[in-house]
Amino acid sequence: MKQTRKSATSERRGQERVVDEKWRTALTSIEPNKILLRGYPLDEIMGRLTFGETIYLLLIGECPSPGIGRMAEAMLASLIDHGATPPSTLAARNTATTGAPLRACVAAGVLGFGRYHGGDIESCMAFLDAGLELVRRGTSYHDAAAEIVDRWNETGDALPGFGHRFHTRDPRAARLFQMALELEVEGTHIQMIRAVEMLLHARHQPDTPPLPINIDGAIAAVCSDLGMPPTVANALFIISRVPGIAAHAQEERDRQRPMRQIDPKDHIYDGPSERRLPERRK
Amino acid sequence: MKQTRKSATSERRGQERVVDEKWRTALTSIEPNKILLRGYPLDEIMGRLTFGETIYLLLIGECPSPGIGRMAEAMLASLIDHGATPPSTLAARNTATTGAPLRACVAAGVLGFGRYHGGDIESCMAFLDAGLELVRRGTSYHDAAAEIVDRWNETGDALPGFGHRFHTRDPRAARLFQMALELEVEGTHIQMIRAVEMLLHARHQPDTPPLPINIDGAIAAVCSDLGMPPTVANALFIISRVPGIAAHAQEERDRQRPMRQIDPKDHIYDGPSERRLPERRK
Amino acid sequence: MKQTRKSATSERRGQERVVDEKWRTALTSIEPNKILLRGYPLDEIMGRLTFGETIYLLLIGECPSPGIGRMAEAMLASLIDHGATPPSTLAARNTATTGAPLRACVAAGVLGFGRYHGGDIESCMAFLDAGLELVRRGTSYHDAAAEIVDRWNETGDALPGFGHRFHTRDPRAARLFQMALELEVEGTHIQMIRAVEMLLHARHQPDTPPLPINIDGAIAAVCSDLGMPPTVANALFIISRVPGIAAHAQEERDRQRPMRQIDPKDHIYDGPSERRLPERRK
Amino acid sequence: MKQTRKSATSERRGQERVVDEKWRTALTSIEPNKILLRGYPLDEIMGRLTFGETIYLLLIGECPSPGIGRMAEAMLASLIDHGATPPSTLAARNTATTGAPLRACVAAGVLGFGRYHGGDIESCMAFLDAGLELVRRGTSYHDAAAEIVDRWNETGDALPGFGHRFHTRDPRAARLFQMALELEVEGTHIQMIRAVEMLLHARHQPDTPPLPINIDGAIAAVCSDLGMPPTVANALFIISRVPGIAAHAQEERDRQRPMRQIDPKDHIYDGPSERRLPERRK
Repeated sequence: MKQTRKSATSERRGQERVVDEKWRTALTSIEPNKILLRGYPLDEIMGRLTFGETIYLLLIGECPSPGIGRMAEAMLASLIDHGATPPSTLAARNTATTGAPLRACVAAGVLGFGRYHGGDIESCMAFLDAGLELVRRGTSYHDAAAEIVDRWNETGDALPGFGHRFHTRDPRAARLFQMALELEVEGTHIQMIRAVEMLLHARHQPDTPPLPINIDGAIAAVCSDLGMPPTVANALFIISRVPGIAAHAQEERDRQRPMRQIDPKDHIYDGPSERRLPERRK
Repeated sequence: MKQTRKSATSERRGQERVVDEKWRTALTSIEPNKILLRGYPLDEIMGRLTFGETIYLLLIGECPSPGIGRMAEAMLASLIDHGATPPSTLAARNTATTGAPLRACVAAGVLGFGRYHGGDIESCMAFLDAGLELVRRGTSYHDAAAEIVDRWNETGDALPGFGHRFHTRDPRAARLFQMALELEVEGTHIQMIRAVEMLLHARHQPDTPPLPINIDGAIAAVCSDLGMPPTVANALFIISRVPGIAAHAQEERDRQRPMRQIDPKDHIYDGPSERRLPERRK
Repeated sequence: MKQTRKSATSERRGQERVVDEKWRTALTSIEPNKILLRGYPLDEIMGRLTFGETIYLLLIGECPSPGIGRMAEAMLASLIDHGATPPSTLAARNTATTGAPLRACVAAGVLGFGRYHGGDIESCMAFLDAGLELVRRGTSYHDAAAEIVDRWNETGDALPGFGHRFHTRDPRAARLFQMALELEVEGTHIQMIRAVEMLLHARHQPDTPPLPINIDGAIAAVCSDLGMPPTVANALFIISRVPGIAAHAQEERDRQRPMRQIDPKDHIYDGPSERRLPERRK
Repeated sequence: MKQTRKSATSERRGQERVVDEKWRTALTSIEPNKILLRGYPLDEIMGRLTFGETIYLLLIGECPSPGIGRMAEAMLASLIDHGATPPSTLAARNTATTGAPLRACVAAGVLGFGRYHGGDIESCMAFLDAGLELVRRGTSYHDAAAEIVDRWNETGDALPGFGHRFHTRDPRAARLFQMALELEVEGTHIQMIRAVEMLLHARHQPDTPPLPINIDGAIAAVCSDLGMPPTVANALFIISRVPGIAAHAQEERDRQRPMRQIDPKDHIYDGPSERRLPERRK
């Protein structure tokens, strides 16, 4: 069990360090010729669980139900990349241009995921929980929404889960809510964030920009309704964005000369035009 | 286009840096309310492609066929974790015990993937390609195997793709080959690595340890037969292992006190006992 | 100028990003054949300022006086290494054993400097400032010490700047205070931390371990009395410890085989026995 | 002692890992109340050795002579920063703009030091050694220079230690050589690099840019003449540049709003104008 820092203090009081009894891990068992991931043989998982389902199993400890599995895949897909302009992607490209290996570029990019960048998910989960605490005590969703919004606005911080630099309607958030409805996994957190959305819409001044629910907010609400703890939700962003960071680092290496000055404003997209998924995927 | 380092030298000759014309990216297009991943709307991908298929799409540029998609999911699942003892996992746990945030722990772990750890995949792809070059010129698979093995042994390096610290029969490699057979995606690289395996078996001295194909070798052969370039195969290890690194970092945070001395030999597994996947998964 | 996060929110309201006017840096000017570090030509600095004085110049903006320069050198030397057991050093060694290049090992180690490890300096500066605020309003040093200690103990966190895992009298802290006395740079923060030390000594229960001032506390007090802001003090730990991390990573590479299991408890020191500096150094 | 990878292979042959006898470190001894750095008490070092001399002691194992100490300080000062445009500095600034803590910004920056960026020092040391091998066998410095230059040019790589993006006469290299002359530490490597410089000057075509010795080349030559091994020279760049990276990360945090798009071309220097060091420093 985790001890408070005061216990760490006792270590700092000059005592000889007590030899640890064996420490424990519940994730993966390794024996000769047998690898168990949360108890399931890894070679049995291969070909039967998708990578997304395997990630869920590893982080949560159990296989997801089909509906939860589809939501998890969608959340992971939604965050996989957001173009060349996020500072974390630029950190990775700047590392790639020095000739550093892929792992260094990925590490540099990962270090930029934080407070202002992917870090909204945990804040938003706490924000919605605060609202639901009021609801549990008898407040209406509408009034609870008003209270937590006002409380948050006093801090001066941006509302977690709302607004976006580019999008007035975040297509990823809309899709995630649609799936939650279809898969019947909507719960009180989604209801809460919808109440906040309606409140902000009602309060909206014509001359100010809209504050749509963004993908961080949608993921926060969905993860909470699926019973996924904030630490796991936090990990989703990193796990999802690493392929995007890796793809950008490799594209930098493949298409550009080394040691170039990377200006984030001076790029254009020259990939495929908009296209539809093949019929069998729909 | 990428220029040689000599071109970088011309930049080092004191010339004023020529202003770049716009640089290009073909990965993701970002416009207000529309995100295209290799041309496909991300909200269309969500719920229709799995995370594994989305990773393939981003790295390769096209959606995978169902067979290739299943192989990709299996390869990603196979590398997701290998317990608490790999040095990269220990680097992540040591970072976690200092109270560092998850992204720092993941970055520290990622930095340990390299030459001796996950780096075998590219070497093995080159190794197999060298053998197939001989086969293309008329050598038998058996003789080509002997030649590349002898050539490699002169370097003093371990044969890439063979042998393992713990496993005499890597269950992940066996499963991957079984799937390749069932999905009919076996090709010349798998044939080549099988030839090397047979050769090593024939040459095996009773008192020396066996040299089975390990998961890096299996992935190298499969990726080559699926037409995936070495850079993408290289990224697979990082993308796959990040969830494992994250899970270990969070378990360290949740279960252990801060600033502890982590002895890799002093741990035991206390997770679920071996169990079978639910029927519907098989 | 830095804007609050609320301004970051306006960026998130879907507005087109305003093109930045030129941004500014006051650190280093680069022109052909001329490099100015805070205005001083770098080739003039070389051979006339030490590395420690150059670090001070870069971080603070002005050359240090001789006394302040000597204190800065001493603080930087004091933190340079603390053996093989700190988790950050182990993270670096674990990265080195995978064959990763030195920069990756250093990066991995740096990521472990945080809340519980080198992060005490800023907390302690705030802690002492709180005490001095009381003193400014008329409280005695003794009573102010008691108040801030009691206040901090309510949080359950260890007192920042006090106690140590190994040392009952941190030799580095004692030496730093001795130098501050000799160089006549002692000020109110050193007075404050001495008051806390005396209070803890008076309150000490025979069966509990002592709580000496540790090097983080000494550095916090000295930096504050030298007028160095917390951000600079925070950087000192990183700047100082990087050579130590690098030395350990290289020793791991030079003396050990790759991919070994590093047990922090299983090492012994085989370097030089205790020896005195040559006479001319004293 | 370090074993070849083939030995690592024996570990990969399925054998139980032999329990290591105690492993050894010769850097720092930690006992209660006593810290020895290469045998010298750290509290004795503080105030008597500079930070630069302490770095040398830790990396090399002995205190530097006064002349070597001054050269080491100068080399460390020379690399401390090179403005806001190096990709590593931009990686650090991009990480800082996300709100990441200083250690993450420094780690991201450090990951960009590599092949094309600070990595020239080791290559240049090998380059000069190849020339001196010819000289030892009777070739003149002039002819040896021609031979190693021609040999290197066949590879297509830029000559290590020569040329610069901005400078036609690297002021840091000139100063380092001047100091080496004054301190009488010039040796065969400096003689060798001068021979190469003269050869390039003689061969120079009027319409091509000049190839002056750059700071990496000067440091390579000086380190070799001072008997410092390539691994130590390699570490110097990282150790020196970390303060610069830290200063840029903090300036980004202090002066700019979060999550901004950093365009490396759009900045100007607004620090102090050129000024001379105070008289007592000269």
